[in-house]
Amino acid sequence: MDVERGETLLDAARKAGVMIASICGGDGICGRCRVQVLSGTVDATPTALLTRDEIQAGYILACQTRVTESVEVTVSHEARGDGAQILVDEDASRFRALVPAFGGQQEYPHDPIVTKLCVEPPPPTLHDHLGCQERLYREIRRRVATPVMQMGLKVLQELPQHHRESDWKVTATLGSRGETTEVIQVEEGDRAAACCGVVVDVGTSTVVAHLVDMTTSETLDAEACYNSQMPYGAEVTRRIIHAEHEGAEALREAVVGDINDLIGTMIARTDAELHDVVACFASGNTTMLHFLLGLDTASIRKSPYIPAATCPPPVRAAEVGVRINPRGLLYAMPSIGSWVGGDITAGILATGLADAEQLTMFIDVGTNGEIVLGNSDWMLACATSAGPAFEGSGVKCGMRASRGAIERVAFGADGSLALETIGEADPVGICGSGLIDVIAGLFETGLIDRSGQLLPEHSDRIRERGGILEFVLVRAEDATEDEDIVVTQADIENVLRAKAAIYAGAKILLESTERSFADIDRLLIAGGFGNYLDGRKAVLLGMIPDIPVERIHFAGNTSLNGAKMALLSRTAYDRSTEIARSATYYDLITYPHYYEEFMSAKFLPHTDLELFPTVADVAAAPANGRSQASR
Amino acid sequence: MDVERGETLLDAARKAGVMIASICGGDGICGRCRVQVLSGTVDATPTALLTRDEIQAGYILACQTRVTESVEVTVSHEARGDGAQILVDEDASRFRALVPAFGGQQEYPHDPIVTKLCVEPPPPTLHDHLGCQERLYREIRRRVATPVMQMGLKVLQELPQHHRESDWKVTATLGSRGETTEVIQVEEGDRAAACCGVVVDVGTSTVVAHLVDMTTSETLDAEACYNSQMPYGAEVTRRIIHAEHEGAEALREAVVGDINDLIGTMIARTDAELHDVVACFASGNTTMLHFLLGLDTASIRKSPYIPAATCPPPVRAAEVGVRINPRGLLYAMPSIGSWVGGDITAGILATGLADAEQLTMFIDVGTNGEIVLGNSDWMLACATSAGPAFEGSGVKCGMRASRGAIERVAFGADGSLALETIGEADPVGICGSGLIDVIAGLFETGLIDRSGQLLPEHSDRIRERGGILEFVLVRAEDATEDEDIVVTQADIENVLRAKAAIYAGAKILLESTERSFADIDRLLIAGGFGNYLDGRKAVLLGMIPDIPVERIHFAGNTSLNGAKMALLSRTAYDRSTEIARSATYYDLITYPHYYEEFMSAKFLPHTDLELFPTVADVAAAPANGRSQASR
Repeated sequence: MDVERGETLLDAARKAGVMIASICGGDGICGRCRVQVLSGTVDATPTALLTRDEIQAGYILACQTRVTESVEVTVSHEARGDGAQILVDEDASRFRALVPAFGGQQEYPHDPIVTKLCVEPPPPTLHDHLGCQERLYREIRRRVATPVMQMGLKVLQELPQHHRESDWKVTATLGSRGETTEVIQVEEGDRAAACCGVVVDVGTSTVVAHLVDMTTSETLDAEACYNSQMPYGAEVTRRIIHAEHEGAEALREAVVGDINDLIGTMIARTDAELHDVVACFASGNTTMLHFLLGLDTASIRKSPYIPAATCPPPVRAAEVGVRINPRGLLYAMPSIGSWVGGDITAGILATGLADAEQLTMFIDVGTNGEIVLGNSDWMLACATSAGPAFEGSGVKCGMRASRGAIERVAFGADGSLALETIGEADPVGICGSGLIDVIAGLFETGLIDRSGQLLPEHSDRIRERGGILEFVLVRAEDATEDEDIVVTQADIENVLRAKAAIYAGAKILLESTERSFADIDRLLIAGGFGNYLDGRKAVLLGMIPDIPVERIHFAGNTSLNGAKMALLSRTAYDRSTEIARSATYYDLITYPHYYEEFMSAKFLPHTDLELFPTVADVAAAPANGRSQASR
Repeated sequence: MDVERGETLLDAARKAGVMIASICGGDGICGRCRVQVLSGTVDATPTALLTRDEIQAGYILACQTRVTESVEVTVSHEARGDGAQILVDEDASRFRALVPAFGGQQEYPHDPIVTKLCVEPPPPTLHDHLGCQERLYREIRRRVATPVMQMGLKVLQELPQHHRESDWKVTATLGSRGETTEVIQVEEGDRAAACCGVVVDVGTSTVVAHLVDMTTSETLDAEACYNSQMPYGAEVTRRIIHAEHEGAEALREAVVGDINDLIGTMIARTDAELHDVVACFASGNTTMLHFLLGLDTASIRKSPYIPAATCPPPVRAAEVGVRINPRGLLYAMPSIGSWVGGDITAGILATGLADAEQLTMFIDVGTNGEIVLGNSDWMLACATSAGPAFEGSGVKCGMRASRGAIERVAFGADGSLALETIGEADPVGICGSGLIDVIAGLFETGLIDRSGQLLPEHSDRIRERGGILEFVLVRAEDATEDEDIVVTQADIENVLRAKAAIYAGAKILLESTERSFADIDRLLIAGGFGNYLDGRKAVLLGMIPDIPVERIHFAGNTSLNGAKMALLSRTAYDRSTEIARSATYYDLITYPHYYEEFMSAKFLPHTDLELFPTVADVAAAPANGRSQASR
């Protein structure tokens, strides 16, 4: 077909009726419109989205390539818009992370970290011939108080044209970089309302992202997937060791790929444009944020355990490969230390712990099981190696809290089971809250003993497979995947180790301040449990201390919520930096009795039943009589 | 030959005895080690120094490419170190710009715009486990007062390793970016003394660069060349029009290429390493600085004549293609307006005009012929389209003030000529000061009349060639190039137009403030005249007003000197920004009688002899009797 000289290949293909996939709409950000030039030469803008090998093989981005002579191009099936162009985890696409807002959080003013401001600088005259840059600065300063201002060269290069072509009505995107403000983009006309951000909780096991309209504060969409770094080790330390031997690039690429997939999916599903996503706020533990930013993790795992940075500077998202607006900024939640990361700072921010008068304990039940104790006067934080059991990893039928996950299990006196799944879908697997319910239920109904051992003589749901006992929760005919959903003896042991680590950490943190569990006014539990956690059952398990149940609150994904607060309020972001600086990191390995405490906590609910008076009757009953005693 | 897997091609080639050119020593900055891979695949770091076409043809940078399997590589003659690997203007390499320091300048403290600071942060302990970034910041802040600090991602990525491998003794390179300080580089060990900068005067006709040791303030080397933008137009306006039609990329590439050649030559000639050049300070008129930075010039030539920016932000030099340390910063002198640029701000800084009590006139005799009038209370500036005659361009045997340029000419009463050349070399051509001497001499000895017309009847040195009269200054047998060195009738007319433009501008500037030439306490003349300008002859020409000769001072290349002051002192740089903001731009086209004044000034010395009382006797004498009258 004939195309006009200078037209982009993407436009030419569209006119010819050939659909080429593009999420970014031709901005050269998403890299989906990759096609191969078979013959002819083209005028292609350099791009970092193609490798040297691809360039040599003739690949170009259709949107960044202009036709100058006859060319022959082949569009792969993948690049065609008619196929399933967006490769996302099918499971993830069914998931909408439900993040209950915990009522405790502080109110922060709506003042997003990146904003758009429509200004109309007066056109120049012979008597007011200030330059384009200074003219824009003057106008911005008339509207917002901003002492220092910076502008990237690319923005400045395009500024005069934008001023002329918009007839002096432009929208400046202002990004906060410490105490300076950067004009990160200038668009023609009034684009102030088209201002989106992405918040990402980069967990060791799962990655959750929300797309937020920064003008209205509305959450437009949510998406999650497992962290693709999993093959490099389920735990943080394994991945650091991998990075030391093989380099960290694969780890960075894995998580950046996850984030890009999540963003791409949300953009494809909503009316938002990738170009209008101008900020990304990442939360996560220190190591995850280091991998994301490509920072050296070697010192994190070696005494005295220091990170490259606790408060990394905002960077251009494109610099680490995160595909939003190419000028958009990526912020990382500040960390407290090597083993208490930005997710915990976010949690403290989201729960208002640092502004509370009451003594508060905050437990983030993730792979690292971080615990914070304190109030507005002081904060002490530690990490326990809980492992990923509560996140659905390292558990045979475990899954993260997404659609189809069994999140609630009630054991009937007659041996019947009542299950609830997320989204009321057919059951797919078990998430963290479901696991707690199952193990608590098994314990209450006498199907396991205090060491967690399954007792096959008490239920025909308990069977042996390959030498390992397992409890059948859902039979294959009732499950989505045509396989039994089971909880194995190994799963139970994983969960007990995890809960013991958390309990031991909490106990030591209190003891180090000469306090006891009774002094806790509020116990806040965070984690990707979906929208439900039964506090009493967590006590029965001995995961959390036996305090009055009304003091126990489930706070949801506080990592994501805190990051969203920081995205939407510079004041909240500044507060998070203060929090990270003021909290004291407490290293459990310096405490001599940690292992002892851990071992004592591996029983149900604990070796020392006096610590759990409200559930002592259940625990004390003989295994087969427990179901009566517990009601 | 056999090489180790993972070794760079540059190292492998060296071991094999094949010299590959490299100025940067393997940092991937200079791009000289470009070689072509004929077969085999390699592991090459992406680089912006190769085009898409080159990558497709298999070109790589030898220093950025690691051997992973058998490869066959061809090294072009150009890339071989044994040839003339550095392509510099032969003429330029003979040149050492002599920049007399004008005594009038202010003393500024030695506080370079980019500095290196060796710090020894205390190694972390379990009780002081601050992150690497925060640990470095803390140490820097103990040494220097710097409120806001930034660090690029690349620097942060390498920081922990540098800390570890240097045993906590590192050198931080600190760049000033407005009110913030950026840690632009961290090196291991004490590298504080290896801190160089380059100052470049980007003139419309010539580009001059100095290499400066920022620690000692010593100028290590100097180099100059013609501005390669010349083919796009001798004057600024022509080049802007070219950019509007064809894009500005070729213009940017031309001047960046010049700068890189100059830097490369100086680095090759001195002990300095390209890696240690961490700052570049560019001075020049507003349009030249715009082309260098890739800024839009369209509004500069159209009423109301506004630039993209008068105070462009510092940028990474690599971002515009200037090859110094890839993290090094490029600063541009702030401009006063579209037609009075950073070179004039530099001139005001260098001459101390803005701090003087006396009324001072500053004339920069370049292609734009800018004039500043004022003192510490006020400053008024304008530009005249003088043209490039005084810079050796648009003149048949003109050349810039470099080795072999005739810079001084004395006419003997007997018709003999005494010439002096720069470097006492054989004459090659005539520079600006030589031209002034020749035309003043021709006028004094009666060989031209008051309109500049050559009078062939008075000297056998005047002859006709191709219908144009010319004056033979040096006969071919005495010249280097085996051609007569002549001054043609057209050359004289070019010079008279240039001097008339300058004089008319100066007169109007004075009149607009209701002052006259007699009020001028100091008249400072800048320009690339080499190290000499005869003030009295300039008066005889009518280029400058007839004021007592002791008030006239030749100030040298103040554009370069001012930029060097700013490079070596942040205080001076801040002062230059104040100067640029406080000086008022006066547009000559708004003055109704400019053309009239210009026409009146085209005579020798002027139509109105009363304006030139001290030379009126020479002018009033009949042409053939002038030589007597003048002594």
